[in-house]
Amino acid sequence: MDPLVSFGRVLRQLRKEAGLTQEQLALAAGIERNYVSLIERGVNQPALKVIFKLAEALGTTPSKILLLVEAELKDAN
Amino acid sequence: MDPLVSFGRVLRQLRKEAGLTQEQLALAAGIERNYVSLIERGVNQPALKVIFKLAEALGTTPSKILLLVEAELKDAN
Repeated sequence: MDPLVSFGRVLRQLRKEAGLTQEQLALAAGIERNYVSLIERGVNQPALKVIFKLAEALGTTPSKILLLVEAELKDAN
Repeated sequence: MDPLVSFGRVLRQLRKEAGLTQEQLALAAGIERNYVSLIERGVNQPALKVIFKLAEALGTTPSKILLLVEAELKDAN
């Protein structure tokens, strides 16, 4: 599986666990709502700063998010 | 400190520890040598796929690289 697709799935899962809509997450992270949607669908790939912003908005760390992405990739392979 | 600057420092350190030139790392990761230089200088920010490619080329994982970046950011603040 593509890291982008995995990242999107993990992001969506973390957002839902946090009880946030895409709009709320976008606002908290300071990015466009449409961008959150594109990332969750694996269409757009987040750049480093966006990964940091999303992690902070979700009350986690970039490395923890990527650990989940790596686990998801391993499961899929 | 900016995550980009921290990422660049960490990348340079990991590359040197691996005994690779920028050119060798670029070749191993399948990206442009100039792009490695720009990332190490904190000028360009790597997108998600590039972080995965760099990690693989360095024999590590994206989450471990970001853990080092987070530690570097914490030290700097």
